Amino acid sequence: MNKRIGKQTLLLPSAPSIVGYASVVGQKEGEGPLKDCFDLISEDSYFGEQTWEKAESHMLRQCFELACAKAQLPPSALDAVFSGDLLNQCISSAFAMKDSKLPYLGLYGACSTMAESLGLAALLIDGGYAGTAAAVTGSHFCSAERQYRFPLEYGGQRPPTAQWTVTGAGAVLLGKEGKGPRVTAVTFGSIVDAGIKDANAMGSAMAPAAYETLKAHFADTGRSPKDYDAIFTGDLGALGHDILQELFRRDGVELDCSYMDCGVLLFDLNTQDVNAGGSGCGCSASVLGGHILRGMEKGVWKRVLFAATGALMSPLSAQQGNSIPGICHAVAIENGGWGNGTAD
Amino acid sequence: MNKRIGKQTLLLPSAPSIVGYASVVGQKEGEGPLKDCFDLISEDSYFGEQTWEKAESHMLRQCFELACAKAQLPPSALDAVFSGDLLNQCISSAFAMKDSKLPYLGLYGACSTMAESLGLAALLIDGGYAGTAAAVTGSHFCSAERQYRFPLEYGGQRPPTAQWTVTGAGAVLLGKEGKGPRVTAVTFGSIVDAGIKDANAMGSAMAPAAYETLKAHFADTGRSPKDYDAIFTGDLGALGHDILQELFRRDGVELDCSYMDCGVLLFDLNTQDVNAGGSGCGCSASVLGGHILRGMEKGVWKRVLFAATGALMSPLSAQQGNSIPGICHAVAIENGGWGNGTAD
Repeated sequence: MNKRIGKQTLLLPSAPSIVGYASVVGQKEGEGPLKDCFDLISEDSYFGEQTWEKAESHMLRQCFELACAKAQLPPSALDAVFSGDLLNQCISSAFAMKDSKLPYLGLYGACSTMAESLGLAALLIDGGYAGTAAAVTGSHFCSAERQYRFPLEYGGQRPPTAQWTVTGAGAVLLGKEGKGPRVTAVTFGSIVDAGIKDANAMGSAMAPAAYETLKAHFADTGRSPKDYDAIFTGDLGALGHDILQELFRRDGVELDCSYMDCGVLLFDLNTQDVNAGGSGCGCSASVLGGHILRGMEKGVWKRVLFAATGALMSPLSAQQGNSIPGICHAVAIENGGWGNGTAD
Repeated sequence: MNKRIGKQTLLLPSAPSIVGYASVVGQKEGEGPLKDCFDLISEDSYFGEQTWEKAESHMLRQCFELACAKAQLPPSALDAVFSGDLLNQCISSAFAMKDSKLPYLGLYGACSTMAESLGLAALLIDGGYAGTAAAVTGSHFCSAERQYRFPLEYGGQRPPTAQWTVTGAGAVLLGKEGKGPRVTAVTFGSIVDAGIKDANAMGSAMAPAAYETLKAHFADTGRSPKDYDAIFTGDLGALGHDILQELFRRDGVELDCSYMDCGVLLFDLNTQDVNAGGSGCGCSASVLGGHILRGMEKGVWKRVLFAATGALMSPLSAQQGNSIPGICHAVAIENGGWGNGTAD
């Protein structure tokens, strides 16, 4: 089996199995439509720590340990951890994993990090370099807010296109063998700069990247959206979700109701005051480690395309007049190997 | 051949070849002992741009394009780019690569990023997922200084243990075949927290991580320091260099004159006012893309262990009283495959 097909899609002949997963979220996320899917909902935004940055780290570690416990796998049994977050210098991942004694691969893919980490962990196993590996990522509303925008105390107003950084984490453990769903293909995306400069419209900055990566995935694999029971983008929000559908519609391709966005699913957009929906590394991560993988376990979906999206900007890059480049990495997850499961 | 040996070392049976490399540095670096090794020395700290962050991005892109030109490989021929830097949200890498249209894997390994990116790029090729891949990383004194420490205009004093962030970038292109040196083994390190809290003594924070990764590499492979013609740590500086030697001495292992540190090599510590030496992602990156790979090409060394080191902290983590965890990733580079070249 050729491992590289088309322009940029990688097939994983051994289809590493998801042997464990978990999700941890904050109170607001725990009051949303997906509330029954999470392993832990913390009512304390500090997670028992003194600062929100330490809280974020605590949440990531807790999520990783929960995934290990659910998989009945001691953390020390893992061969590598891929992890990343939104904080400057990715401190929440580093401090979450610093005592694990596990080989640590730090990533920065903004809100696409869950797909990047999952894809790289799967390749490490498929390539024969690891028996087990973890992908762990998350974000925290309070630490993100004061880093990217304003101090919480300021009570800044947001336009309707703005998104709400999710307090949440997801952890996925991969192994060579297992009964869980399998990672069968990975399409790492390139950066797409649509020239958007409004940091309150991240969905429109990231949707073109999602479009390019999904288009490449379909072209490379010969699959169409219909071949997936469900396609999840990372955190395009309501605006980006619609833009992505429109971009495909222009090509004559319909992304129907099987296409969903994690940022739209996580909150009730009518009642939860999150404007266009959720965002942040923890958005797609907690939806994957909660809703998606539980759904696959229950047989709701057999074949899923998980396409986390990220905006590769910083407050400083925005202040210096730069646009907001987007990126999207897509990971195919199937019950059974490549093409063994079929879409309903 | 077993791809995983010992606790954490990965062998690369196909030994991907370094098909191109380049280095770009700033004026101060271009006046140091390695001045004849760089492809480009910019006298303009702005690299023709309006801000130092854009300058850093410019330098990274320039270095990547130089490596492609030297390899006579159009950038579009590459299958993936692994890249990272020190800036918040890794903007210099993202903006350097945003127009490349290449699958982009963003990393954050602090100053260890050159080894992390090189190791992952090599694994991607060895695993059969890519024909060619690039590892690109760098740092800029002026952007790092105002982000991590003080505005340059302030003219802050530094203690003798402090290091100087290198303005420099390194790019390495890997392919399946080629005449260049080959990546034969990778030891990804775990995070080591020695409890150091002084951000002006990064060498002492990172040396224990270098010690653990090198010790693991030697134990896993059955090699000793004598099996390498040269061992380069990332940017421990004069202080960390001596601490690492002392840590090994306690085990009865002598790191003799074949052990060097990129941060010590890059500047004349007596005359260049850099205190304990160079640091930053660009330190080990530019020394690899200049001094080390040129030396291997000339036959000065046949077998090298490149062990970039990083401090996984941020100004905020320090302000919140956290210690400075270190990390080190080691990559074995040999003329010929694993064990084919022998140390002189």
